[in-house]
Formats: sequence, C-alpha cells, structure tokens
Amino acid sequence: MTSPSDTFLAAAAAVLGPRGLTTDPDLLSPWLTDWRGRFTGRACALASPTSTAEVAALVRVCREHGVPIVPQGGNSGMCGGATPDDSGTALLLSLRRLDRIDPINTDARQVTCGAGTILENLHNAAEAVGLRFPLTLGGKGSATVGGLVSTNAGGTQVLRHGSMRALVLGLEAVLADGSVFSALTPLKKDNRGFDLKQVLIGSEGTLGIVTAATLRLVPAVAERVVVWVGLSSLQRARALLLACEDRLGTALEGFEVMPASSVAAVLAYEPGARAPLAEPHAWHVLIEVVADATGAADLRERTETAIAAAFEQGLVDDAVIASGEAQAEALWRIRESIPSAERAQGPAVQHDISVPVERMPDFVDAAVAEVEGRFPGVRAVAFGHLGDGNVHFHALAPKGTEAQPWYSGTGKEISALIHDRVVEWAGSISAEHGIGQLKRDELERLGDPVSLALMRQIKHALDPAELLNPGKLVTLAPHGPTA
Amino acid sequence: MTSPSDTFLAAAAAVLGPRGLTTDPDLLSPWLTDWRGRFTGRACALASPTSTAEVAALVRVCREHGVPIVPQGGNSGMCGGATPDDSGTALLLSLRRLDRIDPINTDARQVTCGAGTILENLHNAAEAVGLRFPLTLGGKGSATVGGLVSTNAGGTQVLRHGSMRALVLGLEAVLADGSVFSALTPLKKDNRGFDLKQVLIGSEGTLGIVTAATLRLVPAVAERVVVWVGLSSLQRARALLLACEDRLGTALEGFEVMPASSVAAVLAYEPGARAPLAEPHAWHVLIEVVADATGAADLRERTETAIAAAFEQGLVDDAVIASGEAQAEALWRIRESIPSAERAQGPAVQHDISVPVERMPDFVDAAVAEVEGRFPGVRAVAFGHLGDGNVHFHALAPKGTEAQPWYSGTGKEISALIHDRVVEWAGSISAEHGIGQLKRDELERLGDPVSLALMRQIKHALDPAELLNPGKLVTLAPHGPTA
Repeated sequence: MTSPSDTFLAAAAAVLGPRGLTTDPDLLSPWLTDWRGRFTGRACALASPTSTAEVAALVRVCREHGVPIVPQGGNSGMCGGATPDDSGTALLLSLRRLDRIDPINTDARQVTCGAGTILENLHNAAEAVGLRFPLTLGGKGSATVGGLVSTNAGGTQVLRHGSMRALVLGLEAVLADGSVFSALTPLKKDNRGFDLKQVLIGSEGTLGIVTAATLRLVPAVAERVVVWVGLSSLQRARALLLACEDRLGTALEGFEVMPASSVAAVLAYEPGARAPLAEPHAWHVLIEVVADATGAADLRERTETAIAAAFEQGLVDDAVIASGEAQAEALWRIRESIPSAERAQGPAVQHDISVPVERMPDFVDAAVAEVEGRFPGVRAVAFGHLGDGNVHFHALAPKGTEAQPWYSGTGKEISALIHDRVVEWAGSISAEHGIGQLKRDELERLGDPVSLALMRQIKHALDPAELLNPGKLVTLAPHGPTA
Repeated sequence: MTSPSDTFLAAAAAVLGPRGLTTDPDLLSPWLTDWRGRFTGRACALASPTSTAEVAALVRVCREHGVPIVPQGGNSGMCGGATPDDSGTALLLSLRRLDRIDPINTDARQVTCGAGTILENLHNAAEAVGLRFPLTLGGKGSATVGGLVSTNAGGTQVLRHGSMRALVLGLEAVLADGSVFSALTPLKKDNRGFDLKQVLIGSEGTLGIVTAATLRLVPAVAERVVVWVGLSSLQRARALLLACEDRLGTALEGFEVMPASSVAAVLAYEPGARAPLAEPHAWHVLIEVVADATGAADLRERTETAIAAAFEQGLVDDAVIASGEAQAEALWRIRESIPSAERAQGPAVQHDISVPVERMPDFVDAAVAEVEGRFPGVRAVAFGHLGDGNVHFHALAPKGTEAQPWYSGTGKEISALIHDRVVEWAGSISAEHGIGQLKRDELERLGDPVSLALMRQIKHALDPAELLNPGKLVTLAPHGPTA
C-alpha cells in the first residue's frame, strides 16, 4: 500500500531527480543536529535542489501535501533555526547545491550568487578581482549566503560595514505558495513601493526561502593594522573606542573586547598560542584598522598616533601593534578561539546581547556580579563587539557539572535573569544570532506585544499554513505552531 | 440634526483640543494641493496632533467612524502621496507639530526626533554639536523627517551615505488599529525577528503613520572640494565617475550630471548666475568631495590629482575647482536651480528613473533620441545622480503649449514610453520619489506580479479596511481602493 508519505516522496523525487532527494538515515543524520549540539530533530527526507525552479516546484509539492519545510544552509546557525522538530514530518531542504557565483561586476562592485554559496568562497571570488565582501565570522567555511541573509548575520566588521542587511542589494526567494519573488536587481536606487526584500532578510526562512542574492562589494584591503591593547576596565575600553573613532574615522573596522579569563583560557587550550602582552590585564582589546588604496599611505602612522594619544590619556596600560600579517593573524586567532577554548571547559549558557553602546561597560559589570553572586561557582564572561554595543555574555557551569540537567535547570534560570536585565537596560536578547528555536519562547515572554502582533500578521499573510520553518522565530499561535 | 460627519468631528476634536482640528477652508486649502500643482484634493478636516498619543487616539476615532486618513509632512513630495482624493471623506493628518528634536547623543552619533522635524532644522541641530545628518535635497526647508522616512527619500548624497533607509536606526509609528509600534532604539544591532521598521520605511503612510525616528549622524564636514567639469558625453562622465571612485574612495559624496541645455536654462533664468566654464560643453558634471577631520589634510591635493589624471586620460575637456565656499555654493546653486528654470519654460513630464549604473549613458542617449524623434518639438533632458544610476528624465512640451491637455495627452504617452523603456533596460520607474498617486497605475501596469501580490498581502494584513492613505502606492483591488 502507498502511504501519504510515499505519495509525497514520489512527487518530490519527480521534481528533484534521483540525486536530489534522499531518506537514507546516514546521509540525513549530520544535518539533523545543529553544530553546537543543542538541538536534534527528524525529517522525512533531505531535498537538495539545484535550481530556483526546482525549489519552487518542490514548495508547490510540499504545499499540496501539507509537508512543512525546514530550509538549511551551512547548518552553522547559533539558535537551532535550521534544525527540524522531532516529529519527523518536515522536509529538510538544503540550499547547498545552489552555489553558483555569477561573474562579478567590478565597476558597480556587485555580485549575484546562489543561496548555497559558502562565505569563504565568496571572499575568495571577490579577492580574485581586487574587491572584498566585507562580512566575516568564525563559521565562514560553512556558513552560506542564504543563511547569512536569512539571519541578518553580523560578525566582526559590522562596526564599519553593517550587518548582512546593509550588504544585500537584491534578493530572490521562493514564497510559501511556490511563487518566486525575483529582485536580483543591480539597481542602486529603487523606490517602487514596499522594499519587500527587507521583509525576507532576517526572517529565518519563515516567510520565504532565499535562493539567491545580489551583494555589495567594497574595494580590497590595501593595508591593515592590528593592535592588541591591555587595559584595566571596560569603561576605559569604551573611552578608547571613542578616541579611535575620532582619530581613525571609517578606517576603524573592528573593536573586540575580551576579559582576562577568556584570554587565559585560549592560552591554556590552543597549542602554540602566546600571550600578546608581557603583563596581565583585566581587559584586552583587539583593534583592526583597514584602508583601501585611497587611504593606505599613512594608515600605520595614524594608528600609532591614536594609540600613543590613548596612552597619554591613561586609557591604555600596554599595547602591541602587529609587525606584519603573521602576527596580525595570530592576534585574531586568540579572539576567534575563545568559543572553542570555552567549550573545552564544560557546559555554558550563551547570550548574544546588545544594549546601548555607552551603557555596555556598566551593564557587563553589573550582570557579571549578579550572576556570579546568585549562582555560586558559575563564572560569567563577556566578550565581543563592543563597538556595536554587542557582547557574547556567557555563563560557565562549575567544573565537572553534567551538561543536560544543568542546561534545563540552572542554565535556564541564568538565561532568564540575563534576558530580564537586558530588557531593563533597553537592550536586545538577540543582537546578531537571531531567534530560531533557542530564543523563541523568550521573545514571546519579553518581546513588545505590538511587534509580536505585527510579526504574526505578516507571517499569517505570507504563510498562513505555517509550512515554512514552523516553530521558529514566531508562530501564529503564541505557544507552538497551529495545526 | 447631527450628521455622521459631525459625530466624527466632535470625537476627533475631543482628542485633539481646540487648536488641533480645523475645518476652515482657508486653513485647509494650502495643504490640499501638492507643491508641484499636479494634484488637488479635499478633506473633511485638518488634524494637527502634538503627540504620538494624540495620533493614536485619533486613529482609533477614525477607525471607529470609518474615516480614511491622509498623513502629511511638509507637503513637498513629488508623487502626490500626501494629497487626498477629491471625495472629501478623508481626514488630512498633519504631523508638523511633532517637531521635537531630542538631545543628540554625540558619542553614539544618534538623534531621535519627531516626524514633523524639518530637515533643515535637523541639519542645524546636528551641526551645532559637530555632527552632520548626511541626507539633503532641494526641499530641505519644508521636507519633514516623517515624510523622508515614509518615502525613503534620496537626494544628492546617496552615493556615499545611502537613502533614508540607511540612516534610520529606530522608528515609532501608529498602526491602523491605533496601536503604537515603538522601536526608537539606540541599539546598533538587534535581530529579534522581522525588522518591522523596514516594512514601514518607504510605505508612504499606507501601513502606518510615522511619528518619530532615531537617526544616524556622521562626523561634521571638515573639508569639502567642489569641482565643475565640462566633457563631451555621458559615457565619458561615467568613466570619470569610476576614476573618481578609484582615486577618492569614500570621500566622493556627489556626482551630478547636467546636459548643456539645462545649464543654459539656469543661466538664462537665474539673475546673476554665471557660466562656470568659458567654452560650451555637451555635458557638465558637478563633483563633491568631502572629508571629516580624519581625512581632511590632503583632500584638495587628492582631488586635484584625480582630475589631472582624468584630463590626461582625455575624459575631461575643462574643469574648475571651486576656490572657496562661496564659489562651491554658486556651483551647487546652478545644479539646484534646474527644476525652477525648467518650470519657467512651460509644461514638462518628469521621470525619476534608475537603470543599472553602467547602462545609464546608453539609455539616456537612446531615450532622448526616441522621445525627440517620436514627439516633434518636445525636448528631452536627463540630469541628476549618475553615481546612483538615477537620473531625472524630463520631457518639455514645445513652447507655448497649454498645460492640462498636454499632460493628459502627449505627456501621458511620453511617460508610458519612457517607463516601458526603463523596464526593458531592467530599471525602476521610481528611483527615489516613490509611487504616491502619480505612478500608482504605472506600477500596476509594469510592476512584477509577485511583488504586487506580496504588497497587497502585507497591506491587507496591516490595514484591511484601507484607512491609511487610501489610493496611494498600492490598493487592495487592482483598480482603486475597495469600499
């Protein structure tokens, strides 16, 4: 007998061809758990279309059979947004084969590429023609353009170039009814009504499935100067940020802060990692200053002057300017190794939060003290993008703690506390990672009711049957998707 | 007897107080015709609330009585978007009294201000604290922040700083149900679900009534260099643009092109205006190069080098670099006087269009030739923001033509022809002015059906009764608003 599921799978296979659909558990399994290992789900099959037309046809088949769709790019999201639930009813839709990069328009500094394009490949393609795609993050070897667009990803260059939204010029997406929204425009200005791509960017696959994007490029880096600074407080780091903004202007591309304990953890964990400065410091700052050919000549000198002035102001206790690319990369490696080094220390709850930039130092001091005071043995650390008012605020369980019970008990309590405080300080419980399934209920608990109602109205208008990434970000009914 | 209208007016007056509502024809009349004189409508009253709470209460009253609302800022829009229809049923809602500018956060470079804030006042407030709001346009003395946000306005600095959307950090708006969407956030990063403010920006008051915005500021101008160039073709102007982008990078803020006839019209019209160059040229380019304190030192020298190199390449036939602010302003005055000088020459149909930047020169040549060939006596001119791929393409009626019959006959034919060609060249029939009522039917005729369907879905979700700015941009039924 043919089950409804068999009928669906046959129809999907007819659309995708033999290589495009599989139900083999071994092939499915790597994509059913998010990379942080927090969420595991099930799926009726894994679809891997090779064209927008195939995605559209597949969505129509899913719609006809009432099969929900979970779109997935590199499976490197931070909030479980690309992991299906455990019902096994959903189709996992991988966009990874949509990885074509069109010839780059070097005059207009634009490129159109498929949703499956891996960020690092995009970086390389731009570099090959003397340009740069100015967004990068730790997962660049797996993160895809479609995922970056769908989550409005951030990274370490937002200070200068903005989040993904600021880099998206055009978009193509398949909507819940199987129609194709096509706006892969090379236009710099276009005011023909609502800017519909903005609705899709950051909607985490709940309003449409991004299949391609036209992206903005910038001139290649002609010179970069990387500085490592030791100083005594986050308040001084903030003062240093303002001083750098004043003196370096738009050349300032990165301003990352790290507490002593995070740096120590990396030095203990990474073989060959060396302390950048001789003495210990309460806080460390990694500064990246960048210029294209039009501003390269005096960049190093200007940076040295800015750091020297900060010394004289008493903001900086010690600093080293990388002597070349090798040292610059070694300094960045310390910053980028913090998550891995931390993971080796045991369970931790992680919070990607923002508050108004000028309040961040006081917020971190207060939140660290409160968390460590109320949860003895827990260590709280904050590191990240001070220039954007965005830190990753992590609370590490006491040594030897068993993971799962702690996550669902104390870990959850800590997260609720931190989110409460973030809201009190007029901040956001998701600065750059999105909502996914991880923060869906917290958004429901703490979000502005008018905003939540608006999101539901838009979700209902575009995907009334909740076929697109159900259970993520926002659901039509306040608790769980409607049937 | 009390008519339904009297009941409504009494309820509205109760919300707004005696100064907040008028039905006096003399007070209403200046706001019932758009500034270009193309559209005239009627309204049951003019409401002038002084707070967001009053706007919200008023919307609830309107909703209860089924009275449509036409929001209006400076009444300086280009597409009749703020002019009511001639039924007289709508309430004209002026946001001009919501003109408070909050204290500027100079560290974070942000300001929050009411929708009624006049652009020029915002410029002055930013300048007073050593900062700059980097969007400007001809109507800066009347255009309001709410109108600029609602139309995603452009102007002469988009090349460097983007349109209004790129400058809006936070937004407050009253929705069709009278609820207040409040996101006047000072956060630089916030990924809590759909970015709802993006839906409202550029929606021309059809989805919500903007009441306030948090805007991005940039450092003050420390040095600017203004250059006037004469050259022989738009193709060379485009080559000069690329050369300037390469050599001047982000210092290049403006790149405006003008044909010989537009410059001649200004020189004939403006008392005291003088030709910048001794010889005649087919095309003129106005270049603005700007730096804040971090890049001011060598700006003039770098600009001179760039122009000298363009001379050597044979791109430029003649050029003058303004010797000071007075001359710089005189050069800009020529560019800004084109619309007035043109208006003095008689009727003209105007098209605010964009095509991919690299195709603009060929498009203009082809479109001018076709229009002038098919409509004897008509002169076609294109001027404006070549750097954005956006020109204002105007067709001037033969001397002595009577306005209204020409607008509804030949003028309409010319517009349809130009819009057809723009679509064929993958361009936009509205680059920066929006749709309003002027281009609503053309958007319906030429727009992408999937995009139009999406717009209707969103409009229906947020304003099912079409109370907000009915008949503008997009209506629920393809032809005219539903009852």
